Amino acid sequence: MISPALVKYSVETIDWTPAGVVMIDQTRLPRETVYVTCRSYVEVADAIRTMIIRGAPAIGVAAAMGVAIGALQARDLEAEMPAICETLAKTRPTAVNLFWAIDRMRKLYESLRGQPLDAIRGRLVREAQQIKLEDIAINRAIGANGAPLVPDGKTVLTHCNAGALATAGFGTALGVIRAALEAGKKIDVFADETRPFLQGARLTAWELQQDGIETTLITDNMAGHFLKSGRIGCVVVGADRIAANGDVANKIGTYSVAVLAKENNIPFYVAAPISTLDLALVSGDQIPIEERSVAEVTHVQGVHVAPDGIRVANPAFDVTPNRYVTAIVTERGVARAPFEESLRALTGK
Amino acid sequence: MISPALVKYSVETIDWTPAGVVMIDQTRLPRETVYVTCRSYVEVADAIRTMIIRGAPAIGVAAAMGVAIGALQARDLEAEMPAICETLAKTRPTAVNLFWAIDRMRKLYESLRGQPLDAIRGRLVREAQQIKLEDIAINRAIGANGAPLVPDGKTVLTHCNAGALATAGFGTALGVIRAALEAGKKIDVFADETRPFLQGARLTAWELQQDGIETTLITDNMAGHFLKSGRIGCVVVGADRIAANGDVANKIGTYSVAVLAKENNIPFYVAAPISTLDLALVSGDQIPIEERSVAEVTHVQGVHVAPDGIRVANPAFDVTPNRYVTAIVTERGVARAPFEESLRALTGK
Repeated sequence: MISPALVKYSVETIDWTPAGVVMIDQTRLPRETVYVTCRSYVEVADAIRTMIIRGAPAIGVAAAMGVAIGALQARDLEAEMPAICETLAKTRPTAVNLFWAIDRMRKLYESLRGQPLDAIRGRLVREAQQIKLEDIAINRAIGANGAPLVPDGKTVLTHCNAGALATAGFGTALGVIRAALEAGKKIDVFADETRPFLQGARLTAWELQQDGIETTLITDNMAGHFLKSGRIGCVVVGADRIAANGDVANKIGTYSVAVLAKENNIPFYVAAPISTLDLALVSGDQIPIEERSVAEVTHVQGVHVAPDGIRVANPAFDVTPNRYVTAIVTERGVARAPFEESLRALTGK
Repeated sequence: MISPALVKYSVETIDWTPAGVVMIDQTRLPRETVYVTCRSYVEVADAIRTMIIRGAPAIGVAAAMGVAIGALQARDLEAEMPAICETLAKTRPTAVNLFWAIDRMRKLYESLRGQPLDAIRGRLVREAQQIKLEDIAINRAIGANGAPLVPDGKTVLTHCNAGALATAGFGTALGVIRAALEAGKKIDVFADETRPFLQGARLTAWELQQDGIETTLITDNMAGHFLKSGRIGCVVVGADRIAANGDVANKIGTYSVAVLAKENNIPFYVAAPISTLDLALVSGDQIPIEERSVAEVTHVQGVHVAPDGIRVANPAFDVTPNRYVTAIVTERGVARAPFEESLRALTGK
């Protein structure tokens, strides 16, 4: 028999079902727990674009499942495959996991050319499901590698949501926190609310609460105050793309937290799968930063909080230069400066 | 004839009228421009506590007018004066201007003992009105002193609202910006939205827009990204209390902006009247920091954005150590490090 606590824990971020790709609607959490079913690759692309699903690893899984559902429904797969991949790739520009997952699906497809159509479709569907399963396993490994870094008896600060909801399950940054707790460490969490989309308030606070992990919600501008206060033992965040030199693109505000952590001699850890590395980029300056809509800033959950017609900037990500990053925790181990060498060593390239 | 633009500009933050102390309701801006009339000192205290009026200089003026209205209505002024002052003093703990204004009113009252009651009351009412007029003059002087510091052709970043709405008029930090524009400098403004109360989004964006000053609204966690980008020429903020060593208590998030400014070699200026100095305090560690309600963080303008029952921290202010402060701009001149000497010299003590 499954205990209620475990039922609560086992929220599925994304799942492949006969009806389509099912996702928990992250725009409506925590007030409503609603699942949406994407019945075509176009609907999967829309779900990524509108942030029904978000988080670099999770949108990688979603994109893979989008390619699979597109392949299942294509009348002429060879002719339609480029459009399927391109539509999914154009949804969001910053997280590299999206392109990594699409490339993996495309390469598999190319390797299967000439086989019977049903066999190709079956392999693509299984590959998408495999990417999901691997992601959970990867997060467990990231957790195991990161847990020893977390100071016992202190508070962990995190920004945005790099949790179960940002991945296929367990989470990257929150996976490190979960693994540290599983290892018996006595820690609690401070979660930045993460305007404008409020991933911290709506998602991180919610999923940690579901797990019974002691969590305190703060506004983004309080992080510095608490980093100065002495109660924070380390910062752990996820990543959307990591350049060869260890520069990290992640949710807007990450750079500020990293600077404030360094200023207060607090370790700043980035937890991310190897698929987040983009070693083709020499530095973070080359990472494209998505600019999102004015309404995300002028409105909060539909409520207008700013004067009409005010100009807005809304970069969804920022780049944290490698000098602020204490270590990058991956499923294959922990990379430290100089990151050019340590990251390349982890990838075996 | 008054031009429409000038009418727009001349929003009165607070005014003494025969009906009572009239304030623009800052909890409802910018969606509604509503004026409330406080008809007793208790109502003035409530308006300060609930942030119908906020901003260190403005609550100083409000408290002075609260003492005046209390004196007008007291049946036994000598007996009731302590309760009037205490009620107003207990509204908010951090901004020292509140206590400064109450002390000024109390000392005047003590100097008037023995005079006819009507004369005492008249003097107290005139003193409160005088404090308001002085505040506008002080802000003009702060603007004149600060304008030369603002780099031409760049963007000024500000946090919270240290504008006309935070004062009797013109503003401290926004007064510096207004004076720089009046001096012909080509600048624009980036305004942090300033969660949880959204003074930046609701008040700064609104009052700068009323004046036709080019303003871009950003979330608090974007400030670091733009400070790194090279477009910000300086930061100007207000203050709620400044210790003898130049440590500055101001709206939560100010410390973070100051650290990020220093990290990016951008000058960080604090604009505040001499009444914000609390030279009795050796350092900012001694400044009491107000903790406000959970609901301010879990809700945005009445909309619930966090899971039920989540723990919250809500310090309304933080302390910026003096090493991050490039200069403190007052009506008597500009203080620079070492602040122990420069601030004391400005006060003539």
